[in-house]
Amino acid sequence: MTRFLLQISYDGKRYHGFQTQPKKITIQQQLEKNLKKILREKITVIPSGRTDKGVHALAQIIHCDVKSAKAILRLQDKKFLRQINSLLPADISVVNIEKVASDFHARAQAQEKTYKYVIMIAAQKNPFLEEFCWRIDKQLDIEKMKRAANELLGTHDFSSFCASDTAVKTKVRTIKSINFETKNPFSFLALPNNKFITMSFCGSGFLKQMIRNIVGTLYEVGIGKISPEKFKQILSAQDRRQAAKTAPANGLFLDHVKYGRKTKK
Amino acid sequence: MTRFLLQISYDGKRYHGFQTQPKKITIQQQLEKNLKKILREKITVIPSGRTDKGVHALAQIIHCDVKSAKAILRLQDKKFLRQINSLLPADISVVNIEKVASDFHARAQAQEKTYKYVIMIAAQKNPFLEEFCWRIDKQLDIEKMKRAANELLGTHDFSSFCASDTAVKTKVRTIKSINFETKNPFSFLALPNNKFITMSFCGSGFLKQMIRNIVGTLYEVGIGKISPEKFKQILSAQDRRQAAKTAPANGLFLDHVKYGRKTKK
Repeated sequence: MTRFLLQISYDGKRYHGFQTQPKKITIQQQLEKNLKKILREKITVIPSGRTDKGVHALAQIIHCDVKSAKAILRLQDKKFLRQINSLLPADISVVNIEKVASDFHARAQAQEKTYKYVIMIAAQKNPFLEEFCWRIDKQLDIEKMKRAANELLGTHDFSSFCASDTAVKTKVRTIKSINFETKNPFSFLALPNNKFITMSFCGSGFLKQMIRNIVGTLYEVGIGKISPEKFKQILSAQDRRQAAKTAPANGLFLDHVKYGRKTKK
Repeated sequence: MTRFLLQISYDGKRYHGFQTQPKKITIQQQLEKNLKKILREKITVIPSGRTDKGVHALAQIIHCDVKSAKAILRLQDKKFLRQINSLLPADISVVNIEKVASDFHARAQAQEKTYKYVIMIAAQKNPFLEEFCWRIDKQLDIEKMKRAANELLGTHDFSSFCASDTAVKTKVRTIKSINFETKNPFSFLALPNNKFITMSFCGSGFLKQMIRNIVGTLYEVGIGKISPEKFKQILSAQDRRQAAKTAPANGLFLDHVKYGRKTKK
């Protein structure tokens, strides 16, 4: 049995998230189906973490094990990336593959994940970017959003920002940093009147819909509906009903995952 | 009769070009159909120039005339952009509208057009950018491409780079500048191994498929199949059969159109 790490990238628009679900098209299902075609054995892929329906990944990390000597050779063949990418749909790409130690684990050993969430402020739609950001037609007070976001730094119980149907042992997570950028993240695909706020969230791990619930609530801070002080209370309440609506999935990108000293991107 | 100028932007992927054609979905057909719904009169739109099937526009300029007083008021209403954009499909957007003099003409008065063509050099596909560039897996010698492109500057008969089925009075056109840029034009949608060459073509006007034929031939210069000297001969030959294959439409963007002293972008 030999373990391989794959770096993959996907446009999540058409998929019901990463994880296989009955009768749904998912990233995992597409990967396993097409890896099997090349490797001629059943393959199970383990990601650094699931991404939800519609969420994108610039550099997701997965691992999988292969048994047969032939399959191992196929994965180590120079042609493998071209083969798998010609089988996969246009919106999923395997960017890199490497053999790893048999105790490497894409999820268990992920030390840090960085997600980016892009808000576009524009009165009219941008035909190139509707799928890659949350477009809003309101001015946002970024300074207030930053003050509120600061409350999230460190280790907290994030129940207020976790999807209510989540069954996990603990909703305590650590957010290491949240950065706000206002430069154009899409270069020339942006139109002259488009403004952007890109928030980068770096942490040990995130709960289901946690970032989108945080962004949805920070948005309400930005439009003045919730004060930064109230935002702090929402976090403390540990009650999902206190926070605002979930921001749309299409603005969210898994940017990269850090393992040990090496950032897999 | 009152004339209006509209600035529009579109992702050309799903369309058979700008111009109305029987039984095809085109940008013009979508615009006229949806403008009629709001204005309750037949509308004909005139663009600065047609774009071919699959070609994108960041800032295309069109004009149209409206007759009824009600329609004029509707076009001048603040809500108009929101109305038309909610009717149009997600990949076409009206970005701006203004009343213009009745002798303004989007095509006849266009002084200068700038197109951008994006080549991505990458071994594997990028799930976000397949529709926005021509992906190739070869190294290109940009210096040679620049030398060849220099031969195109100024006024020439561009028959060698014009689609053979074009019925125009003259194939003489003027190219004012061709610029090469290697910076990443898509910011974070680019993956770490993606390299780019963006060529900007500025000229008085371009023949059918002219830029894509130029790019297809410059590509062969870049890979060393055609020398810059041979490229010069191809231009002089005034024979489409001398040039290389047409580059794909999806890498081409109408960037902006210049009228008089004002750039409409």
